[in-house]
Amino acid sequence: MKIAILPGDGIGPEIVEQAVKVLKNLGESFEMEFAPVGGAGYEAAGHPLPEATLKLAQDADAVLFGAVGDWKYDTLDRPLRPEQAILGLRKNLNLFANLRPAILYPELAGASTLKPEVVSGLDILIIRELTGDIYFGQPRGVRECPDGPFKGQREGFDTMRYAEGEIRRIAHVAFQAAQKRDKRLTSVDKANVLETFQFWKDIVIDVHKEYPDVALDHMYVDNAAMQLVRAPKKFDVMVTGNMFGDILSDAAAMLTGSIGMLPSASLDVNNKGLYEPSHGSAPDIAGKGIANPLATILSAAMMLRYSLGRVEQADRIETAVKTVLTQGLRTPDIFEEGCTKVGTSEMGDAVVKALA
Amino acid sequence: MKIAILPGDGIGPEIVEQAVKVLKNLGESFEMEFAPVGGAGYEAAGHPLPEATLKLAQDADAVLFGAVGDWKYDTLDRPLRPEQAILGLRKNLNLFANLRPAILYPELAGASTLKPEVVSGLDILIIRELTGDIYFGQPRGVRECPDGPFKGQREGFDTMRYAEGEIRRIAHVAFQAAQKRDKRLTSVDKANVLETFQFWKDIVIDVHKEYPDVALDHMYVDNAAMQLVRAPKKFDVMVTGNMFGDILSDAAAMLTGSIGMLPSASLDVNNKGLYEPSHGSAPDIAGKGIANPLATILSAAMMLRYSLGRVEQADRIETAVKTVLTQGLRTPDIFEEGCTKVGTSEMGDAVVKALA
Ligand SMILES: CC(C)[C@H](C(=O)O)[C@@H](O)C(=O)O
Ligand SMILES: CC(C)[C@H](C(=O)O)[C@@H](O)C(=O)O
Repeated sequence: MKIAILPGDGIGPEIVEQAVKVLKNLGESFEMEFAPVGGAGYEAAGHPLPEATLKLAQDADAVLFGAVGDWKYDTLDRPLRPEQAILGLRKNLNLFANLRPAILYPELAGASTLKPEVVSGLDILIIRELTGDIYFGQPRGVRECPDGPFKGQREGFDTMRYAEGEIRRIAHVAFQAAQKRDKRLTSVDKANVLETFQFWKDIVIDVHKEYPDVALDHMYVDNAAMQLVRAPKKFDVMVTGNMFGDILSDAAAMLTGSIGMLPSASLDVNNKGLYEPSHGSAPDIAGKGIANPLATILSAAMMLRYSLGRVEQADRIETAVKTVLTQGLRTPDIFEEGCTKVGTSEMGDAVVKALA
Repeated sequence: MKIAILPGDGIGPEIVEQAVKVLKNLGESFEMEFAPVGGAGYEAAGHPLPEATLKLAQDADAVLFGAVGDWKYDTLDRPLRPEQAILGLRKNLNLFANLRPAILYPELAGASTLKPEVVSGLDILIIRELTGDIYFGQPRGVRECPDGPFKGQREGFDTMRYAEGEIRRIAHVAFQAAQKRDKRLTSVDKANVLETFQFWKDIVIDVHKEYPDVALDHMYVDNAAMQLVRAPKKFDVMVTGNMFGDILSDAAAMLTGSIGMLPSASLDVNNKGLYEPSHGSAPDIAGKGIANPLATILSAAMMLRYSLGRVEQADRIETAVKTVLTQGLRTPDIFEEGCTKVGTSEMGDAVVKALA
């Protein structure tokens, strides 16, 4: 089994190092091959997603990704900026299904900015479509405004679109995920304004016929943003498009106050996937050895579960992470009075020890 | 001075009644004319925005709007649904600048789902562009997918677009609003993915040259959604497009836990405006006399301030609202142990009394 390891920029390399350490201590042998991506790709090969990196990711059974981005690349032309690597990987590998759990570990309830009674026990799964929508729709660009009161001026424009098959396949993923949980699915749309999302809603309703055991409801995206703040525990699984999912999954993650704990998976139709922490590259703390590696370690667990068919190993890692939390070990981002503050690699070591 | 009064559906009529009562007790004479809108427009004239209602709104100096929508209209064709009235009014009256304050009254700090230290004293102003973006962009619809892996299937599609002049005018509104406050403006975009919002960012940076006293920063919409949950008090004024503003302004309102308190203004280039509470029509509690009229009363205050040049009267109303809160009067939505529970019209009467 071959895993492509793409550490990326900022804290990427140090957190990925811990996940690799955990993978090496499971008593199984994985073939792991490293390649540069993001700013590191640009430095190494003049492109955020070098050809060799893409090829490695395509050939591998799964991809473990750190994080990309650093202020020093902000002045590059858009196609050369680090985040293009992640968009390129999603599109080229057809990773259309993004699974973003928002879970609040009981030990970390205090880290949330929300009142404990509102978030304790939070366990939502947000499923975001990841290869369609306004992220990739053509045409797009800057042109002369063709009509209306601003005719003749320059205008920026993009195309939002979802084809029937694209909606169907993400809806199937969402209904099946709901079946394995509390059997409740909320489809988030803006059907009252957008043609794309009226169409989305119609198709989701149609796919629902195949999953009569799942309770489906529909919510406008503005209301969903409110309900996440008001009563997040009411949700079980949410499914939405790429753009709305970008916003809502980050808001949901932040409800926990511990985004350094949250993994993510991006899957293709065959459950091949890319796994990455939900947080970013945090260049401000890179190299200081204080970043929280647990989101990346939990991403490796998701990889074992979804792409590599090693469910018991995934369980082992997740249990080990709970153990280190119970032991009171905390990186600075989740530190609270009375706990033991540890660095990135100490935390990695503690998880390895807890595996035993 | 002529005010068009459009009560609408659900709790709309009862909350507007209280605002009208307050306006009538200011010792000034306003001409007020009522017209049906939303579901009520559909019942009266077969259309959510009857021609006579639109004409009244166009001829008036300002519009006071209740709320629209009710489940019983959910099965109508989209063009006949209540919310089309609000979109039609915005577009026809060129109400491009939506001002949405998110303020947490000290007396109501407990109503928030966020910890008091995170939100007490919250005072953000969100400025949302309201007549452009993907809300109105053409082409849009359902068509045969022209290319890519889903070619030949049906697809829903919409067009996001912003012309230079549209961005400039909302940026001017935002910079000027910031000048009157803490002189900090956050422009929210998705320039890392969308052409429309790279263009938006470029134009905002250009307009900034005329406002060197305002500190401008830029934030991606997903990060803005996170920062609103993490540290909302860091914001002063935020400006963004129609779609992102729809989501973020509702999320920000919900941070206060008391959306029944929050007014909004939608202005054209001459400061003619439409004023409405930030909350919806709440058909589940309509007619029960328990709805909170304060957001609508505060919307009337905004109307006096921005469109009718009656700043002292606006101040009087806002002070009266603070007085009734200090007196401990609460409608059920903001009720807490130790306060006095009152109904919709009692609350209106209390504000009138506090004006004196
Ligand atoms: C970096 C950016 C292009 C990306 C996105 O918008 O999808 C990020 O925000 C994410 O959610 O992974
Ligand atoms: C009712 C709907 C069309 C509207 C919008 O999306 O603008 C509403 O959500 C709002 O924010 O006023």
